[in-house]
Amino acid sequence: MSRDGQARSGELVLNHGRTETPAFMPVGTNATVKAMRVEDLDALGVRLILGNTYHLALRPGIDVIKEAGGLHRFMSWPHAILTDSGGFQIFSLAALRRLDEEGVSFRSHIDGASHRLTPERVVELQCDLGSDIMMALDICTPPDAGREAAEAACARTTRWAARALAARRAVRDAAAGALFAVVQGNFYEDLRERSASDLVAMDFSGYAVGGLSVGESAETYRDFLRLSVGFLPAEKPRYVMGIGTPEYVLDAISCGVDLFDCVYPTRTARNALALTRDGTLSLRWHENRLDGRPIDPKCPCPVCGSYSRSYLRHLFKAKEILAPMLTTYHNLFFMQELIQEARAAIRERRFEAFKTGFLSRYRERRVREGGEMTARGIDRRIGGCGG
Amino acid sequence: MSRDGQARSGELVLNHGRTETPAFMPVGTNATVKAMRVEDLDALGVRLILGNTYHLALRPGIDVIKEAGGLHRFMSWPHAILTDSGGFQIFSLAALRRLDEEGVSFRSHIDGASHRLTPERVVELQCDLGSDIMMALDICTPPDAGREAAEAACARTTRWAARALAARRAVRDAAAGALFAVVQGNFYEDLRERSASDLVAMDFSGYAVGGLSVGESAETYRDFLRLSVGFLPAEKPRYVMGIGTPEYVLDAISCGVDLFDCVYPTRTARNALALTRDGTLSLRWHENRLDGRPIDPKCPCPVCGSYSRSYLRHLFKAKEILAPMLTTYHNLFFMQELIQEARAAIRERRFEAFKTGFLSRYRERRVREGGEMTARGIDRRIGGCGG
Repeated sequence: MSRDGQARSGELVLNHGRTETPAFMPVGTNATVKAMRVEDLDALGVRLILGNTYHLALRPGIDVIKEAGGLHRFMSWPHAILTDSGGFQIFSLAALRRLDEEGVSFRSHIDGASHRLTPERVVELQCDLGSDIMMALDICTPPDAGREAAEAACARTTRWAARALAARRAVRDAAAGALFAVVQGNFYEDLRERSASDLVAMDFSGYAVGGLSVGESAETYRDFLRLSVGFLPAEKPRYVMGIGTPEYVLDAISCGVDLFDCVYPTRTARNALALTRDGTLSLRWHENRLDGRPIDPKCPCPVCGSYSRSYLRHLFKAKEILAPMLTTYHNLFFMQELIQEARAAIRERRFEAFKTGFLSRYRERRVREGGEMTARGIDRRIGGCGG
Repeated sequence: MSRDGQARSGELVLNHGRTETPAFMPVGTNATVKAMRVEDLDALGVRLILGNTYHLALRPGIDVIKEAGGLHRFMSWPHAILTDSGGFQIFSLAALRRLDEEGVSFRSHIDGASHRLTPERVVELQCDLGSDIMMALDICTPPDAGREAAEAACARTTRWAARALAARRAVRDAAAGALFAVVQGNFYEDLRERSASDLVAMDFSGYAVGGLSVGESAETYRDFLRLSVGFLPAEKPRYVMGIGTPEYVLDAISCGVDLFDCVYPTRTARNALALTRDGTLSLRWHENRLDGRPIDPKCPCPVCGSYSRSYLRHLFKAKEILAPMLTTYHNLFFMQELIQEARAAIRERRFEAFKTGFLSRYRERRVREGGEMTARGIDRRIGGCGG
């Protein structure tokens, strides 16, 4: 592993191959990274994607995926998959959820059917999916939850993590994936520390920092990310959930995070927002009508090699499927390049200079236009990272 | 050129390369064959696609495409393009159309803006698009138009064809495309004959049979297709507009047609209907839920090589963009294979046996299920071929 300040670059060895870190995981909510073919993800160098256990359990149903021989075979993806626990979606999407010490009951946001998840069941579901990295079921609390609720949720998350780990250790299948735990603790320093130290003592394969970008300020987010990562062991992989803008990814890398996932590059693409070195570009804008330039004249991706802003604008205006196909490809190419350059910068011990240089150019246009960023995207229209 | 009965197989030499015939043209209404990348069309062996002048003139506007250097560059398609005249769309889509001897005025179905097309203007628009094969503006009449209206429309179509030809001959650009005329005459044998002989006398580069599959019976359609083709010169290419089901394509080939276009394989794909040697397969059906087989176990296409019916069903249920992407690819692969086999059968003088064998297997399932076909698709839900 290479280190440069807190930033680090290495390699994860998983059941479905190796993944260089830092790694950005495109989100494959419904067993597909939206508008992307698996061959294209492969060609982009993507070696790890995220699947959403909650979504897959509701549709098509885990039985369908198990029958297919697991999620990799079902979606024809040869490389690694990290699956979340479903906890975040239960708290953000499900109707009528009810939490008790044993687990959580909820109604599907799709058809209202009742479901029950426990820490043990979530491990079982992820084993059925054939996940390379499984996440323990955790409890996320909002910034205004209050000390008492935050402490209770944090303590329960730790007890659930212990049950998840016991369930994982009981699995006799040698091909079962690694299990990561999720640090909670809301926005209380001592709770974050207690959560991390209790989980680290249990010796999980890796750790995620949860309960961030749930409505707190950018400053609070940054403080609590740094604080939480500081409690994690250097030799284990670290994952921050729901991070996907270039700013937040580079910031997370700078404090020593290895893995991120977010719908940001794919969802913005479907909303006609292209990522460029000079910030984001809205392809719907009228000023692109006759613009023969590609999204980014210096981008070496095949989309920029063949298509103009004028053409892409037309495709979005005409609601053509090719519009999200091409823009998603470009945006994921952009994220892959960003991460690859970040890795190289860490290896060459020039990461802070790379980050500063990248962001000053990237932000210039937006600062000029007065936009504002959140960890999960540019604005409400683009929405959160829940899937 | 090879001949087998009335069926024929040869090659068209166009500004953007050669096209073997019979050729099925996928429809690229809005400067994209829906859900397909141009590289994939190319890899499928497609060498000629159809563009819709009416749609492109309204959105993005011919000025945008002209600025890009023509339709080929705009959409990054290196091979040939046939553009229609817009006549069919004016009669099927536009609001408040008004016809006079000079041309046709109409309001856009998109924004209600007023437009005017004349035979000369339609040639000019298609030259601006850089079309390889341009169509003369014609007037299509419904089956119940009556003799008088049919005769008047037919005569005007001929006068307009003469004006289009004069306009084409006045174009000094050596790269301008070939001009085809459209045989009309409603469902009157003498009018069909008069239309064809008048147009043939003017010596167009090719001839289309228009005014078919507009609501007439399958028998009437077949009779009038054969009749119309019989009036056309053997040495010129023949085109039937809006034909796309395997049955109708094979029937048209058997009476000597060289070119067809239809949204059938692409539109049905978006409606979860896959084409197989054993007839169509609805991917939404519950019986596919756990079916690990591909769309067609013997199909050599990459979609059938990688994805199950169960997965495709899930993608359609989850409204994932990958669903139309994969199914469109498969359906166009199927059509390309069908046409390639038809060409080989003609060259080897066994076309009728090929057609009979193909159709008896293809129809077996549908006959069992009591479905019924029309030239433009299976049923109303799938809709017409206008774009």
